[in-house]
Amino acid sequence: VNIDLYLKEKLQLINQELDHLLPEAHLEPQILHQAMRYSVFAGGKRLRPVLFLATLDALQKPADIYLPFACALELIHTYSLIHDDLPAMDNDDLRRGLPTSHKKFGEGQAILAGDALLTFAYKLMVLPGKMGASTSKLLAAIEEVTDCAGLKGMIVGQVLDIDAEKKDLDLDQLQKIHSNKTGALFAASIRSAAILTDCNTETMARLTGYAENFGLAFQITDDILDVIGDAGKMGKPIGSDQKQLKTTYPSLLGLERSKALAKEHVEQALYCLNEFSDSADPLRALVRKVINREN
Amino acid sequence: VNIDLYLKEKLQLINQELDHLLPEAHLEPQILHQAMRYSVFAGGKRLRPVLFLATLDALQKPADIYLPFACALELIHTYSLIHDDLPAMDNDDLRRGLPTSHKKFGEGQAILAGDALLTFAYKLMVLPGKMGASTSKLLAAIEEVTDCAGLKGMIVGQVLDIDAEKKDLDLDQLQKIHSNKTGALFAASIRSAAILTDCNTETMARLTGYAENFGLAFQITDDILDVIGDAGKMGKPIGSDQKQLKTTYPSLLGLERSKALAKEHVEQALYCLNEFSDSADPLRALVRKVINREN
Repeated sequence: VNIDLYLKEKLQLINQELDHLLPEAHLEPQILHQAMRYSVFAGGKRLRPVLFLATLDALQKPADIYLPFACALELIHTYSLIHDDLPAMDNDDLRRGLPTSHKKFGEGQAILAGDALLTFAYKLMVLPGKMGASTSKLLAAIEEVTDCAGLKGMIVGQVLDIDAEKKDLDLDQLQKIHSNKTGALFAASIRSAAILTDCNTETMARLTGYAENFGLAFQITDDILDVIGDAGKMGKPIGSDQKQLKTTYPSLLGLERSKALAKEHVEQALYCLNEFSDSADPLRALVRKVINREN
Repeated sequence: VNIDLYLKEKLQLINQELDHLLPEAHLEPQILHQAMRYSVFAGGKRLRPVLFLATLDALQKPADIYLPFACALELIHTYSLIHDDLPAMDNDDLRRGLPTSHKKFGEGQAILAGDALLTFAYKLMVLPGKMGASTSKLLAAIEEVTDCAGLKGMIVGQVLDIDAEKKDLDLDQLQKIHSNKTGALFAASIRSAAILTDCNTETMARLTGYAENFGLAFQITDDILDVIGDAGKMGKPIGSDQKQLKTTYPSLLGLERSKALAKEHVEQALYCLNEFSDSADPLRALVRKVINREN
């Protein structure tokens, strides 16, 4: 596998499918469909759908009928960013170098665009049921995503994050916020794909271990980039965590130990894939890239 | 059927089930679970779950395994009210005589409580699949609710409503907003139940007609109550539509013609049920009550 080509192809596939599935911007009410598309096509890395597709590949299951499901993961991620950026939450004006949704469309429309993306994600998740997927496995995969996007993951992380503002956290508390806020949806992207293939418990446990370590490596790197990243490449100002007095990995451990910890999680993620053939090479490449990214 | 007893029993059943299914308020993060429960148990009439259960009864299908699905409809309704009340939307301080969610818990937590209720609704909608429901019919019912809560209904209505603020509307435009904003979820409550019973096209068309007329009668009465209702029984101030210069049925047609129109929709809803046996008596009673309510 030429991994850069693989990732580029997946990215194109997902972007095409998102463009195909989302309502066109000229349809009424235009402001809603424009706001949905604006945030979805603001330059996301599509990490969650790529992880989903790479997991199907690792388990040697054809992905075609599950593409809408992959796209749903990106919509859930996008809705969470729109709501997260709102004045009542993080109050961010910029995201990926562009005005945030509420800056562009107004606060009410931004809230509704988020609601619409979350709802539409479920529209996409039921689609494979019409294309020959096992309906019982599909329901189980939907439940997995629902848990991780909701009360066993993302929303809990967001609530804890708001609650923690300007408080001093220890490493355990910081990890708990991140594993819920971002880790859970990475895990859902990988685990829902595994559920659809009906893999055994052993394989599921290994993939879950990969997912957890992936999430931690991702988040530690996020915190590091906020200290040493390039504002131009990041599409947002650097140093915002420190300005907001946020507890981060570098603030708790220092920069060097944070880097070492991120690397350790990459090694552990790779270790979880030991029993897999080279069909898991895309998953291996993805976690290696996570700590070597620039945005 | 003693209809008052029937409705009382259904209300109790739904409230018990909601209490049983929602995470307990003492679980961490408490503020999230408290905010979810606060709005769900603020005295709703449970019209949508009751319509769902009454439709199953009309089609003589046992309801027991579908109770979580019925509750999900109430959660979707509740999430929409929380977001609708936000400062960026209707900016309401009171709902059913109590402080609105953002007044009680803060704006960020209110947005998240709404997000959590919408997400948890899907957790409840997949449950019947584990209790013996047909998984393919269940997926079709979930899709129906998703459409009506999203891009073919509620969210579109909300977007149109924000857009229409302080504009003069004609009757068609007003009807379009309401049929999306409130009518669609009533329709989903009835149609999703019908989908689960696998009824024929003819029956589905009749029930859809009932649902549309139910929704219109409901909304016209809502507008009338904002003019002549009792603030104590309504749990909110009277005359707020006029104060906000909102176009309503009474503002377009006057009070008497509005009342006559509501009554006409009730008659049409009843007509749609003509071919049904007395198993549809609860549906008949529900639409009659819609124009004779005090809140």
